[in-house]
Amino acid sequence: MFKKILIANRGEIALRVIRTCKEMGIKTVAVYSTADAESLHVRFADEAVCIGPAPSKDSYLKIPNIIAAAEITNADAIHPGYGFLSENSRFSKICEEHDIKFIGASAEQIDRMGDKATAKETMIEAGVPVVPGSEGLLGSIEETKKLAKEVGYPVMLKATAGGGGKGMRAVWKEEDIEKAFESAKQEAAAAFGNDGMYMEKLIEEPRHIEIQVIGDQYGKACHLSERDCSIQRRHQKLTEETPSPFMTDELRDAMGKAAVKAAEYIKYEGAGTVEFLVDKHRNFYFMEMNTRIQVEHPITEQVIDYDLIREQILVAAGVPISGKNYTPKLHSMECRINAEDPYNDFRPSPGRITTLHAPGGHGVRLDTHVYGGYVIPPNYDSMIAKLITTAQTREEAINKMKRALDEFVIEGIKTTIPFHRQLMDDPDFIAGNYTTKFMEDFKMKPQE
Amino acid sequence: MFKKILIANRGEIALRVIRTCKEMGIKTVAVYSTADAESLHVRFADEAVCIGPAPSKDSYLKIPNIIAAAEITNADAIHPGYGFLSENSRFSKICEEHDIKFIGASAEQIDRMGDKATAKETMIEAGVPVVPGSEGLLGSIEETKKLAKEVGYPVMLKATAGGGGKGMRAVWKEEDIEKAFESAKQEAAAAFGNDGMYMEKLIEEPRHIEIQVIGDQYGKACHLSERDCSIQRRHQKLTEETPSPFMTDELRDAMGKAAVKAAEYIKYEGAGTVEFLVDKHRNFYFMEMNTRIQVEHPITEQVIDYDLIREQILVAAGVPISGKNYTPKLHSMECRINAEDPYNDFRPSPGRITTLHAPGGHGVRLDTHVYGGYVIPPNYDSMIAKLITTAQTREEAINKMKRALDEFVIEGIKTTIPFHRQLMDDPDFIAGNYTTKFMEDFKMKPQE
Repeated sequence: MFKKILIANRGEIALRVIRTCKEMGIKTVAVYSTADAESLHVRFADEAVCIGPAPSKDSYLKIPNIIAAAEITNADAIHPGYGFLSENSRFSKICEEHDIKFIGASAEQIDRMGDKATAKETMIEAGVPVVPGSEGLLGSIEETKKLAKEVGYPVMLKATAGGGGKGMRAVWKEEDIEKAFESAKQEAAAAFGNDGMYMEKLIEEPRHIEIQVIGDQYGKACHLSERDCSIQRRHQKLTEETPSPFMTDELRDAMGKAAVKAAEYIKYEGAGTVEFLVDKHRNFYFMEMNTRIQVEHPITEQVIDYDLIREQILVAAGVPISGKNYTPKLHSMECRINAEDPYNDFRPSPGRITTLHAPGGHGVRLDTHVYGGYVIPPNYDSMIAKLITTAQTREEAINKMKRALDEFVIEGIKTTIPFHRQLMDDPDFIAGNYTTKFMEDFKMKPQE
Repeated sequence: MFKKILIANRGEIALRVIRTCKEMGIKTVAVYSTADAESLHVRFADEAVCIGPAPSKDSYLKIPNIIAAAEITNADAIHPGYGFLSENSRFSKICEEHDIKFIGASAEQIDRMGDKATAKETMIEAGVPVVPGSEGLLGSIEETKKLAKEVGYPVMLKATAGGGGKGMRAVWKEEDIEKAFESAKQEAAAAFGNDGMYMEKLIEEPRHIEIQVIGDQYGKACHLSERDCSIQRRHQKLTEETPSPFMTDELRDAMGKAAVKAAEYIKYEGAGTVEFLVDKHRNFYFMEMNTRIQVEHPITEQVIDYDLIREQILVAAGVPISGKNYTPKLHSMECRINAEDPYNDFRPSPGRITTLHAPGGHGVRLDTHVYGGYVIPPNYDSMIAKLITTAQTREEAINKMKRALDEFVIEGIKTTIPFHRQLMDDPDFIAGNYTTKFMEDFKMKPQE
């Protein structure tokens, strides 16, 4: 087992990893930027090394500084957390070259999943469903019609140089495709000077549902069931839950098998997440794989009595996994509490937390690196806490979240607590009736 | 279902009940003494009524004030918490007379269990093992010898007027009993002017292990497994855990059956606890029944995914229980954080909490009514928080407790955190090798 782990990250995830290391009797090294000297991860680690000034490129992304910190403290492993260097294959490789175990995927695994096109190809080889569409650019209208028939309507036509909805058309039946194709091409040519088009199946009422997997060094993987992360704003997840209210036993079984297939195909080592889009007919399509621990991992831990960070460390140390697939026994939900003003387009709100009172009691978990008096630096992600509730049923988990949000006092800065309170009262959310488009229509009610 | 529940209590248990009521959509009424105006239970309830000055007899024990508070706020039920009026049969009866549902046992059930002698008789009738011994006073030495043989050595001879160890003798074999009996009698006569003696079986290496039960209004009861509460100081529990490290499947089954038998015999309604003494041979003997929720109930909730307060409310509303007996799936431990100085004979340390930082993360639950800036009044019990950790194994639960205790910052007053930290490092505790005598030999190491 490792004697000392350096955590190449900051904030709540650094603290999360330190906690499990302590519980396992493993010494910890925190690294920090000058902006993070007062953070709890620095205080709770056995040792702490300053690795540079606030801009991430000069500290949390600066590989030589991190490797140097590991070498001077004699750390024998590095946990990268999420973000920063966690999916950087070069970093994984450099750790290996320095004989420091990278607690995560190998450089090769990261590379196979890091690039979208390569990942899609790999998944096709592995037999995992991907969003059907054209390989490369579309040719004539006849070829396009033929392909659309194969893919199945509805389809999206998209400009290869596109963005902002320009050169993009949803087509629901064959008689409309010619007109849509021509007009999208013209629009693309005018907007981007490039009329190249490609086609993808249009995913109706898409949900973002991901499967947590874990693989060991012996080619074996298993899944720990799903998380529904459809509540997103500009691709930033806000609230996650497990099980997904849209899930069925059959779908979980099929998605779980596909995710394990994906992981085993690349002999994936460590904790990872296979993200899928699921349409209203419960067809599912591979989106991407995150080759690291995710922000929302606690809800999985809550419903299957598991410590994912512990498992990451065990797997990295060469311990084989049990191979058992898990099904949620409970319902768990996470609200990301960000230092943002939900009444002002979620604008970041760094600054000093003057008062903090944490909710607690039955079924409540709080993961946070902040405290009363802490100054949130403006340099990083605005997430300051993850509030997680767990109960027998979804309804109880929502009710528990409501009361925990009511108890949560954070003064001195704006937070997303009012947003989550309104979300927990939203009839569509309560009904479990939401897709990735949910936030496009969500409007904050006037301030309480 | 009840529309509004008044909580006739204070501190963490009042808050505990309010939380579950909120989650169930039931309105709450807090009552408080003038000393408790700043307590969180007052802040988090829907309504709050001041019921008098600090001395408990003038507020939390003053039945007319509490009934009046329930009537003016239209509460249709009262939850008594623990302590105060929770085991007061008169209060239960008065609630009933005022058509307010008492969330707890009936007056008759409380009376049958409230008095030790009556409870023991009832248990003998129900066929639950009690500590064997003499019925009434011992007669001649021949009778005493005969009885000792029936009870089985070792036995304790005790002065009926005794106290402080005077007139008390442990006897391990027959040849010693005559001498012991005579000398104890003489000692008792000299000390108390009363040489009446009785006999009880001596419980070797006793453990305090209790079984949580719940019964419904239809005469059905089930058990929710055990809690080991042997770590006590002057009959005050300090740390509890479940499962007991001394438990076997057979013993749990036998004790669970006995506890259910006890509850069903008196048609017990609500949550209750049957406390047993267990000797080193795993014989168990009924000690007493607590006809209320207990301080240490959360550890049971943690290991069986249960909300005991919710079940109390459901049962009081006439919902039948499932009847399923439960076995712990996990290991959970509670440390009572008291405002006491463990380096100074656990002397109470009321006053202002200047800084409070709560531990959190995976497997950590905190139940507390205090916060940074809160002033602990000198009038009440010194318990200010219950720190609960839960994990797959006992070792992991202990390690988690250690790291949670390390994270817990309470400044401005003395607390029992240093005691718990030393307890978690004690080799006998770690080995699960402890009895109710443990604290007699425990010495605090010098201050860190």
